[in-house]
Amino acid sequence: MTETSMKIRLPVACFIMQIILIIIFGVLVEYDDGTDARKFHELQKTNGTTDIENEFYFRYPSFQDVHVMIFVGFGFLMTFLKRYGFSSVGFNFLIAALALQWATLMQGFFHGMHHGKIHIGVESMINADFCTGAVLISFGAVLGKTSPVQLLVMAIIEVTLFAVNEFILLGPLGAKDAGGSMTIHTFGAYFGLVVARVLYRPNLDKSKHKNGSVYHSDLFAMIGTIYLWMFWPSFNSAITAHGDDQHRTAMNTYYSLASCTLATYGMSALVCHEGKLDMVHIQNAALAGGVAAGTAGEMMLTPFGSMIVGFLAGVISVLGYRFLSPLMESKLKIQDTCGVHNLHGMPGVLGAIVGAITASVASKEVYGDGMADVFPLIASGDIDASTQGVRQAVSLAVTLGMALLGGLITGFILKLPIYGAPPDTACYEDALYWEVPGEEESHGELTTVRTEEGEKLNA
Amino acid sequence: MTETSMKIRLPVACFIMQIILIIIFGVLVEYDDGTDARKFHELQKTNGTTDIENEFYFRYPSFQDVHVMIFVGFGFLMTFLKRYGFSSVGFNFLIAALALQWATLMQGFFHGMHHGKIHIGVESMINADFCTGAVLISFGAVLGKTSPVQLLVMAIIEVTLFAVNEFILLGPLGAKDAGGSMTIHTFGAYFGLVVARVLYRPNLDKSKHKNGSVYHSDLFAMIGTIYLWMFWPSFNSAITAHGDDQHRTAMNTYYSLASCTLATYGMSALVCHEGKLDMVHIQNAALAGGVAAGTAGEMMLTPFGSMIVGFLAGVISVLGYRFLSPLMESKLKIQDTCGVHNLHGMPGVLGAIVGAITASVASKEVYGDGMADVFPLIASGDIDASTQGVRQAVSLAVTLGMALLGGLITGFILKLPIYGAPPDTACYEDALYWEVPGEEESHGELTTVRTEEGEKLNA
Amino acid sequence: MTETSMKIRLPVACFIMQIILIIIFGVLVEYDDGTDARKFHELQKTNGTTDIENEFYFRYPSFQDVHVMIFVGFGFLMTFLKRYGFSSVGFNFLIAALALQWATLMQGFFHGMHHGKIHIGVESMINADFCTGAVLISFGAVLGKTSPVQLLVMAIIEVTLFAVNEFILLGPLGAKDAGGSMTIHTFGAYFGLVVARVLYRPNLDKSKHKNGSVYHSDLFAMIGTIYLWMFWPSFNSAITAHGDDQHRTAMNTYYSLASCTLATYGMSALVCHEGKLDMVHIQNAALAGGVAAGTAGEMMLTPFGSMIVGFLAGVISVLGYRFLSPLMESKLKIQDTCGVHNLHGMPGVLGAIVGAITASVASKEVYGDGMADVFPLIASGDIDASTQGVRQAVSLAVTLGMALLGGLITGFILKLPIYGAPPDTACYEDALYWEVPGEEESHGELTTVRTEEGEKLNA
Repeated sequence: MTETSMKIRLPVACFIMQIILIIIFGVLVEYDDGTDARKFHELQKTNGTTDIENEFYFRYPSFQDVHVMIFVGFGFLMTFLKRYGFSSVGFNFLIAALALQWATLMQGFFHGMHHGKIHIGVESMINADFCTGAVLISFGAVLGKTSPVQLLVMAIIEVTLFAVNEFILLGPLGAKDAGGSMTIHTFGAYFGLVVARVLYRPNLDKSKHKNGSVYHSDLFAMIGTIYLWMFWPSFNSAITAHGDDQHRTAMNTYYSLASCTLATYGMSALVCHEGKLDMVHIQNAALAGGVAAGTAGEMMLTPFGSMIVGFLAGVISVLGYRFLSPLMESKLKIQDTCGVHNLHGMPGVLGAIVGAITASVASKEVYGDGMADVFPLIASGDIDASTQGVRQAVSLAVTLGMALLGGLITGFILKLPIYGAPPDTACYEDALYWEVPGEEESHGELTTVRTEEGEKLNA
Repeated sequence: MTETSMKIRLPVACFIMQIILIIIFGVLVEYDDGTDARKFHELQKTNGTTDIENEFYFRYPSFQDVHVMIFVGFGFLMTFLKRYGFSSVGFNFLIAALALQWATLMQGFFHGMHHGKIHIGVESMINADFCTGAVLISFGAVLGKTSPVQLLVMAIIEVTLFAVNEFILLGPLGAKDAGGSMTIHTFGAYFGLVVARVLYRPNLDKSKHKNGSVYHSDLFAMIGTIYLWMFWPSFNSAITAHGDDQHRTAMNTYYSLASCTLATYGMSALVCHEGKLDMVHIQNAALAGGVAAGTAGEMMLTPFGSMIVGFLAGVISVLGYRFLSPLMESKLKIQDTCGVHNLHGMPGVLGAIVGAITASVASKEVYGDGMADVFPLIASGDIDASTQGVRQAVSLAVTLGMALLGGLITGFILKLPIYGAPPDTACYEDALYWEVPGEEESHGELTTVRTEEGEKLNA
Repeated sequence: MTETSMKIRLPVACFIMQIILIIIFGVLVEYDDGTDARKFHELQKTNGTTDIENEFYFRYPSFQDVHVMIFVGFGFLMTFLKRYGFSSVGFNFLIAALALQWATLMQGFFHGMHHGKIHIGVESMINADFCTGAVLISFGAVLGKTSPVQLLVMAIIEVTLFAVNEFILLGPLGAKDAGGSMTIHTFGAYFGLVVARVLYRPNLDKSKHKNGSVYHSDLFAMIGTIYLWMFWPSFNSAITAHGDDQHRTAMNTYYSLASCTLATYGMSALVCHEGKLDMVHIQNAALAGGVAAGTAGEMMLTPFGSMIVGFLAGVISVLGYRFLSPLMESKLKIQDTCGVHNLHGMPGVLGAIVGAITASVASKEVYGDGMADVFPLIASGDIDASTQGVRQAVSLAVTLGMALLGGLITGFILKLPIYGAPPDTACYEDALYWEVPGEEESHGELTTVRTEEGEKLNA
């Protein structure tokens, strides 16, 4: 077995993790009231709930949109690398499949057990996908430089800490963060950045020629971008309250994204060589408007406010890609493959701040009886709007602290030389972990160069 | 700054337009009753509306399908060009993000203000996406021959005229056109064709070798085709009345498309060299059944009628690609890159005619109490069915007139030499406006030829 | 006309079939109560049904997800072949468009006529798409070795037999199979395998160099895989009863797939050369968890049970690809291009067995009043749970028998030398039936080699 071989490592990791998951599910997990045959029919008898009022019909279309974002959106967004498409979409697939199961357990544990059981349904499925999103953001920071086993281990730890942080924010702190500007984006980004810092590779320039795109890989990445962009309104609104809340959140996000897109194109032409557009900006910064509307999207932000937020997010994201990322690599030794700091980090912090401000000006005149859905603590008179704003701000600080500390610990765990991490010469390279076919050349002769190269790498 | 540089032009256009949009939204736009926290809860108290009866649950899944058509469908359909994939999906993205915002305002203005405010919700979002669709159809006619700034200017003018035309049809004329055979497809196609005529390039053959596909670009285009095909039932039914109307419209469109597909394959083999199938036909003509069911889809067209309409649409569309398009280029000097005349123009007119005929035979026996949803003027006794048919036909004439006149004016505005339009030698070429990576060759060496070529083009 | 030319054959087949379909639809098909303008409004008056309770809102989002699986999922999954992408997605499109129309008629006929008419709505659309799925599975077995006319003929026969088998299972036998482990997957797989056996080509190694993937074709195939994976919960739940049933089925499938994915990655690394992952396994075996949850998914299988089923399905599917498929080709002379035996055959049988076992332990304690939705015959006291289990097992046997016999007959019909089937030297080759552009080489010069090659093949 060579140093990077997955022959034993990956099966062991997958099978052990999956079998443990199955056992815990067997012991702890139950259908919730909307999913269980007996319980839902009892509920219908007791409450007169009609079939269409099953939670499924309120949330399943949103769930599927979120699901597409997690598996197609994140997966294909990362296929921009010329030789790392299999790993981008394939490892994304693997760690998402693990993370959503583990998240079901961790979030179920913290969201409150029912007689010692975790109750699950479509809402827990959305929450599990959300938590998975944070892991995939961190994946973006270390893309191309990690083995699948490292990623699985990272997923397990990150999901656990995500659940703790989410619990602190939504529980004791009473913060609102339906689209996860803090819990998902800020947490996932800074967690991943610190992991990338700890895993810093001084000799990564040996793989530099593979850290870039080719024409068609950029088009594959645009599939990811466009799906993320289109379904972000569903993402932010997926777990908000029924009725006007889901409706409003989706619409705010829609306008934030549209405005962000124009800002991104304008900025990209402005800062790039000869006024040409840079695919990296379009693929990423155009999405920042969705991130930045993640906290305030469910509030009465208004389309006007959403568009301002989206515009700012697009501007700072492009500036980040153009000026900040190179500095972070040279000065801070953070090699952020996908630039998650620009897409999720800064826009996530912006979203948290916008959420705190918007919450602090919430008034009964504007929200009416809808206050109870958006700010239950204000509606019940427990706290006033400015306190809600402060709690939102504190939540951002807690999230940053959890992410930095968690990333630090995780980074050192991932540094152990047992996971089969790629050597500096074979980063951003599918052939290390995949059977890779050649490109077709001379009309039909399969070149085996790539596969041979992969074998050499393994030797 | 070279003649085609976007260094100043694009940022100026994007920022000015977006800032104006933000200001107008701030002044004029409000949440509607289903989106506003206070108002929806008041509505619930007054009317006993349940959460699930919020407009969001009736229309949001359809909206998302339409959204996919606009951004993935149109965007990827146009990636068939071998060197214009970035621009196809990227400019599609840009002008759609602008158009949907401007459409919100224009349509809101014409659909009726509420105490001086435009009220928006999921239905206005669908309508904005619809209007955007018309712009993207016109984009297809001029694809590869325009700068992004030209496209933004075209979008602003076209959206405005679209809203005027839509108002005339649905308001004073009382026409029905839920899927937009007239308002979207006929309008967008003939508008774009006239623009293409005014922008005629006699020396376009200098870029002829780039006006074609390669193997993988055709597969990317099929992503667009298939998504348009699958979601067209949602498109046509997205803003029809609740209940049977949405249900029926979706089903009629489903069968029209299936029938159209068989007609397309048959015709393609019949008219092509050696009986081989032509990807251009499959990518486009198979969709004509959706266009042609855009007006009558919500009516009691029956699956039988829908299938006949779809069949005819497929036949005329393939014939158009094979025989009419070359003639239009050589005789009428209309260089229609995507053949929008065959996919949207003729099938749109067919759809309008089918709509007029179907309306003119509407009867109380067939529609029952559902008449009020489909033909409110007939149900109320204001007009009879044959008058409705006449009004539908008049609507087609008005649409054609508006499109031709609007396209003419727009074409001359776009001819001004200030937008950085591509020279005849650099049409259908991403490298003019994008940083383009090379294709991978010799296993890992990035060729920079394309980028250099782009620089030469700019020099 | 050369031997494989589609110049006459394909138009004749398409036009005749489509015209016959149109005529039968005209004579026999009517809108159902939820789709017809008059009837739905009468229903609302009589029963007080609200708009949101129209079947459309219960099932249309699921329908669209299923639709995506049929056209994008199956279509792109098969684009893995390096030179057969046009045919994979294009013939998939063609035969699906035919099959869904014919299935509407066949299923309508067997599901019960209403005063001599077939009533259709969103549920029949889902069922038609389901039946189409079986045809596309069989297509996977013969992929690359059949002409489009052969495929159309296969579709007509297979849809007919599918409807008969489905009727026997769901009617007289009273079996449950909402996600079609038996009716769709087992039937489609074994039907296709027998057809492939009858069409065995001893000299297929002449096209062997084309029976493989290239880098980007594997990425296109992953689009298909991921969409199938994401939307499988919608597939299995699309026609289950309203409320908890749809909710539970979707969730069971979600966990089965997640578990299957980890099993697949682990097994793939374990059995492959040097521990590298094989794209064939990831693209296919990771989906087996959806197939295997097709029968029991609507039952009270629990997430725990679903995860065990998914795990087993992933394991047997990878083992099948690695060890069984080569044996089936060498010993049984079954050339199964896509390995449908591993993805649909064995997991389908597993799903049927799991369904039989789960049914046989159904109890009133677990299902409560929900029993009537899942097992109406048990709820009504007509049979007990163990009898239901036996009937499920008998259904599997019937399905296998129908598939084997049907495939045998169909295979011999398809062997007639009239359909323009490809010669052994031109299998897995788009250029035989499509106008194929060259790959771009030397920066912009279109190579015409492929097209020339296609002409030579036809000569």
